[in-house]
Amino acid sequence: MGKIKVGVAGYGTIGQRLADGVAKQQDMELIGVADLAPTLAIRALKEKGMPYDLYLVDGADKSKFDELNIPVAGTFMDMLDKVDIVLDSSPGGIGAKNKEIYLKKGIKAIFQGGESNSVADVFFHGYANYEKGLNQDYLKLTSCNTTGLIRTVDCLDREFGIEKVAITIIRRVADPGDYHRGLTNALQIDKAPSHQAVDLMTIMPHIDATGILVHTPVTHGHIITVVATGKNKITKQQALDAFQKHPRIRVVRLADGFLGNASLFKYARDLGNPRGDMYEVGLWEDSIVESGNDIMYAINIPQESVTIPETIDAIRAAFALQGTREEGTAKTNEYLNIGKFK
Amino acid sequence: MGKIKVGVAGYGTIGQRLADGVAKQQDMELIGVADLAPTLAIRALKEKGMPYDLYLVDGADKSKFDELNIPVAGTFMDMLDKVDIVLDSSPGGIGAKNKEIYLKKGIKAIFQGGESNSVADVFFHGYANYEKGLNQDYLKLTSCNTTGLIRTVDCLDREFGIEKVAITIIRRVADPGDYHRGLTNALQIDKAPSHQAVDLMTIMPHIDATGILVHTPVTHGHIITVVATGKNKITKQQALDAFQKHPRIRVVRLADGFLGNASLFKYARDLGNPRGDMYEVGLWEDSIVESGNDIMYAINIPQESVTIPETIDAIRAAFALQGTREEGTAKTNEYLNIGKFK
Amino acid sequence: MGKIKVGVAGYGTIGQRLADGVAKQQDMELIGVADLAPTLAIRALKEKGMPYDLYLVDGADKSKFDELNIPVAGTFMDMLDKVDIVLDSSPGGIGAKNKEIYLKKGIKAIFQGGESNSVADVFFHGYANYEKGLNQDYLKLTSCNTTGLIRTVDCLDREFGIEKVAITIIRRVADPGDYHRGLTNALQIDKAPSHQAVDLMTIMPHIDATGILVHTPVTHGHIITVVATGKNKITKQQALDAFQKHPRIRVVRLADGFLGNASLFKYARDLGNPRGDMYEVGLWEDSIVESGNDIMYAINIPQESVTIPETIDAIRAAFALQGTREEGTAKTNEYLNIGKFK
Amino acid sequence: MGKIKVGVAGYGTIGQRLADGVAKQQDMELIGVADLAPTLAIRALKEKGMPYDLYLVDGADKSKFDELNIPVAGTFMDMLDKVDIVLDSSPGGIGAKNKEIYLKKGIKAIFQGGESNSVADVFFHGYANYEKGLNQDYLKLTSCNTTGLIRTVDCLDREFGIEKVAITIIRRVADPGDYHRGLTNALQIDKAPSHQAVDLMTIMPHIDATGILVHTPVTHGHIITVVATGKNKITKQQALDAFQKHPRIRVVRLADGFLGNASLFKYARDLGNPRGDMYEVGLWEDSIVESGNDIMYAINIPQESVTIPETIDAIRAAFALQGTREEGTAKTNEYLNIGKFK
Repeated sequence: MGKIKVGVAGYGTIGQRLADGVAKQQDMELIGVADLAPTLAIRALKEKGMPYDLYLVDGADKSKFDELNIPVAGTFMDMLDKVDIVLDSSPGGIGAKNKEIYLKKGIKAIFQGGESNSVADVFFHGYANYEKGLNQDYLKLTSCNTTGLIRTVDCLDREFGIEKVAITIIRRVADPGDYHRGLTNALQIDKAPSHQAVDLMTIMPHIDATGILVHTPVTHGHIITVVATGKNKITKQQALDAFQKHPRIRVVRLADGFLGNASLFKYARDLGNPRGDMYEVGLWEDSIVESGNDIMYAINIPQESVTIPETIDAIRAAFALQGTREEGTAKTNEYLNIGKFK
Repeated sequence: MGKIKVGVAGYGTIGQRLADGVAKQQDMELIGVADLAPTLAIRALKEKGMPYDLYLVDGADKSKFDELNIPVAGTFMDMLDKVDIVLDSSPGGIGAKNKEIYLKKGIKAIFQGGESNSVADVFFHGYANYEKGLNQDYLKLTSCNTTGLIRTVDCLDREFGIEKVAITIIRRVADPGDYHRGLTNALQIDKAPSHQAVDLMTIMPHIDATGILVHTPVTHGHIITVVATGKNKITKQQALDAFQKHPRIRVVRLADGFLGNASLFKYARDLGNPRGDMYEVGLWEDSIVESGNDIMYAINIPQESVTIPETIDAIRAAFALQGTREEGTAKTNEYLNIGKFK
Repeated sequence: MGKIKVGVAGYGTIGQRLADGVAKQQDMELIGVADLAPTLAIRALKEKGMPYDLYLVDGADKSKFDELNIPVAGTFMDMLDKVDIVLDSSPGGIGAKNKEIYLKKGIKAIFQGGESNSVADVFFHGYANYEKGLNQDYLKLTSCNTTGLIRTVDCLDREFGIEKVAITIIRRVADPGDYHRGLTNALQIDKAPSHQAVDLMTIMPHIDATGILVHTPVTHGHIITVVATGKNKITKQQALDAFQKHPRIRVVRLADGFLGNASLFKYARDLGNPRGDMYEVGLWEDSIVESGNDIMYAINIPQESVTIPETIDAIRAAFALQGTREEGTAKTNEYLNIGKFK
Repeated sequence: MGKIKVGVAGYGTIGQRLADGVAKQQDMELIGVADLAPTLAIRALKEKGMPYDLYLVDGADKSKFDELNIPVAGTFMDMLDKVDIVLDSSPGGIGAKNKEIYLKKGIKAIFQGGESNSVADVFFHGYANYEKGLNQDYLKLTSCNTTGLIRTVDCLDREFGIEKVAITIIRRVADPGDYHRGLTNALQIDKAPSHQAVDLMTIMPHIDATGILVHTPVTHGHIITVVATGKNKITKQQALDAFQKHPRIRVVRLADGFLGNASLFKYARDLGNPRGDMYEVGLWEDSIVESGNDIMYAINIPQESVTIPETIDAIRAAFALQGTREEGTAKTNEYLNIGKFK
């Protein structure tokens, strides 16, 4: 099999990062990205010299791109003619409409967490249920919080067996640069249980999960506290050892200067990672506490980039590029340079 | 017995509210308040027409008060000569020094959560261990978060029996008007377990408690999520019924407009409560969820005012004004107008 | 003439404070307030024991009020039958529709800044153009920023003559308790010139004004910097003396603890003012600087309450209760207890 | 002359960016960076594979670096033996002490804005007074706000002649990742005039400047409004044309999606700039307004990176690599890729 040809629909916060991530996969070829309007992200693409071809979705006004001398490679349909699979990171609801087109064209697609579950054959997580995605045509990724959360719960579950989790999501309310949503000097609570707990149960049906979500006025990274009940007692050291081995979990310590979500963002910027992104979830060693059979800990979710590796895992599963979760995730990690620091 | 004569040491965020609270107790007499410098709070006291006498602690420069025409009733020692008990809300550490003076003068005292436990004979909570405070001389209140948390845990424990709690404290990082501390676009995590979980176990030693605390950039009201494990299954309805009956718990709903901590502050302002204070903790009906024997829920802690009722309970216990928790807290509630809305 | 009978349409942030302010005027009678739904403000009114009668506007579902045992005195039309004037603080746009009704009923009305200027005969400010409002039927108040700004510019203008102002509005983006709007870790700039500069020129047409507005993620009080160009040189001391004499300007100093907008909110809370409101604008003595004929200074606008006095001035003008700005504003100040601290 | 050998003292927020900037200059060689402790920035340097040599300053505990397998190339003194010039971005006050060493070693140095002016022979700005820095040994850069502000005022001054400026600095209170300083729901005002206005007059003594600074709870980019009084009338179009031509000023528009400081940070991230940095100041076309001879406008200062180009200009001046401001700044711009997008 030659390289898998990939297109990205929607060049927003997630779409940009998907395109960058795919471009690093040596067994994939990024055909291009599709969008509607000359947003800041598209203007930046132009200023960078168009590393990717740009296609225009239905409804786009090409003259606006021409005015700005932004080269256009064709229409969304033109892009679809060239790809094997689409990573659909369109605004919520558009993906479902796009699926009609994908079906007609016989193209696979992977949807992000904003779409309804019904759009896909499989609700997918690279570590928790890779095998369910094998040779499937339509997969939907878990949302950013759920993706990061499941990494850690799956990690404990495979090692020790987990029966129950109760989570508290301390959610960032907006992304950096957002002006259309925000919260000022307020914490906002959602109706419980949070969808992330419900979604975890869909992916890991043998676990009983519940949780509460509180929005907070910050932009870089959710923090989730997890109370996980083991089948048997799990000690802090056992949990720590398991987390340390996971390539997509970065264990950090207060004493080293990782004081909160902003430290992880700063660190990723200092690493020189494009956009200051991080693929790993942070997990504070100092947060791990035991209580009976419960183990409690706190993680940091870099909301803009955390789902990128699992989305690429999904491409691997969809084409059975690798047959097992170990092989699939390892290949993604290799190309994304994940876990090298360990 | 005549009215209990009460003095307040330290007219800061807590001291102001203690003075106001004592002034409403018909079986107590507020002798005055003591402080060091003409802070904004003292200037406001002057502008209000000096409803309370002001005494100056050691080190105060009286000439600064004279310049501003702020009447001074005497020294801290003068105040101590007139009181039966001091509510010590001095900055952390000063209370321990003051205790030497109280001992010499034979005066009782109640310390706030910032002092070390060793300053007091009893670590006190009006609902959880009122009887331990009976006829004691030196009592220390639990901190704001612990006070509110224990109200709800004690409420469930007395009704159903609680074995274990795991809490996540989403903490406000500063009070309104604070410029000496703050957090900007960051969540900050503390070493676990949080002291509030440890303190809960001191007050309620039969419960196993742990927890994680995350500071957030807001000023009005902590939110705490609680995972409480019952001896037996507790249903959402059972928990809700218990909470509804508690005078110092205000059950609220998202549908009524209580969307987060800022709604509760707004509501207290709209009620016309001085300073927009609220004595009750808020508890969201929509947050209560079950998971096995666990019941999970979220509460709001109005950090500036929540400890006032329990501090007044402590005066009642110290002089055995009422002999039981039911009678002691009921009297405080009556004079503070708590629970009337139920 | 007996007491002026006043109704308030819209019991939101401004309406609540208008009702409270009118209730303090000994020559006015508050007939009641009208609203649509059992908001938090209405629930608080109920919990306070209904100090004001409540009327329901068209479209209100009375059964919802009945469920909550909130007494309803009648319809909006019933209220209008009893009043001489309405303070219309309905959501923007509704006031214009209501005006049709007021015209039919022959009732005067005063609109808030959110309505278009065309709704009124006079664009009004108590200090700057009181006399223009005399015996008028429909007046519109300047917005919160413009009201406070004009107090200070008018103050300098009457004393020294002002030719030109350039303002920078550092705007609070939301009110305490707002969840429907907010800004997180961002400053947002509006198209210049800001409407406040334009409005100032409408009220004070002899002054050339321009300005830039930047939204900031805070909830308590705008800060405006003003560069005012005098006909002749104005010294810092001259400006300070003029500001000190103005009843609705509170001159504050950093050294006294007034470090920013949050200090003024804290101070108003400590004063015991209902809701922590303040009618005066704060003006920092430490901010006043000279540069040629320019004088530059910074003021604080308590956005929720600053327009209340000028709105009451407007009632006085509309009925010619007092014939001059000096008498009109003095009477409002007396009943609102403004300027007593000077 | 061979390549200028450059060392960086202090690998903090500014030091990191200076090192990156110097490394891009083809006529300079970065010898290394010196620091005290294994901060997050140093840990990131290690994880990146040590693109720069690291030297340890006096007082550093080498064993801590050894534990982390961070290679150390030598001591600060070792570094000084190899360099022609030091960019001193040590914490404020340390630079003055270091100067004694530089004098003894006969090494030139450039200090950042945090040091006192007396540490340097010249208070330097690449565009405003490049020639004053020629062949000087000790130069001090203007602070971030002053650097960006002067770019725009100098730009207008050279074209039209400026007599006077009044500025309002809407200051970000902390950098991303800061936990030791912050502000929560508050605006804080400083004693006027702000040092930036005073500093501008030191660099441009023919201009009368004053200003007010207000801290705001955000982390990405100050906004400054400038009221500049021309010798003659300056129209909006004239000012805009001048700004458009300046390589280090990026004119942006609301309609294009640049709604505030956060948009510029987002754009720099999307450009793939390391750390999401930007060397240019943003200037909103929509903010430019006229008022008599005054022109008013608003700029955005990316505080972490804005001084990098002018610091490199200072190296050019110190060694007279280029003899004029036009040549010096052009060479810096070329290597930093500044102004290419125009």
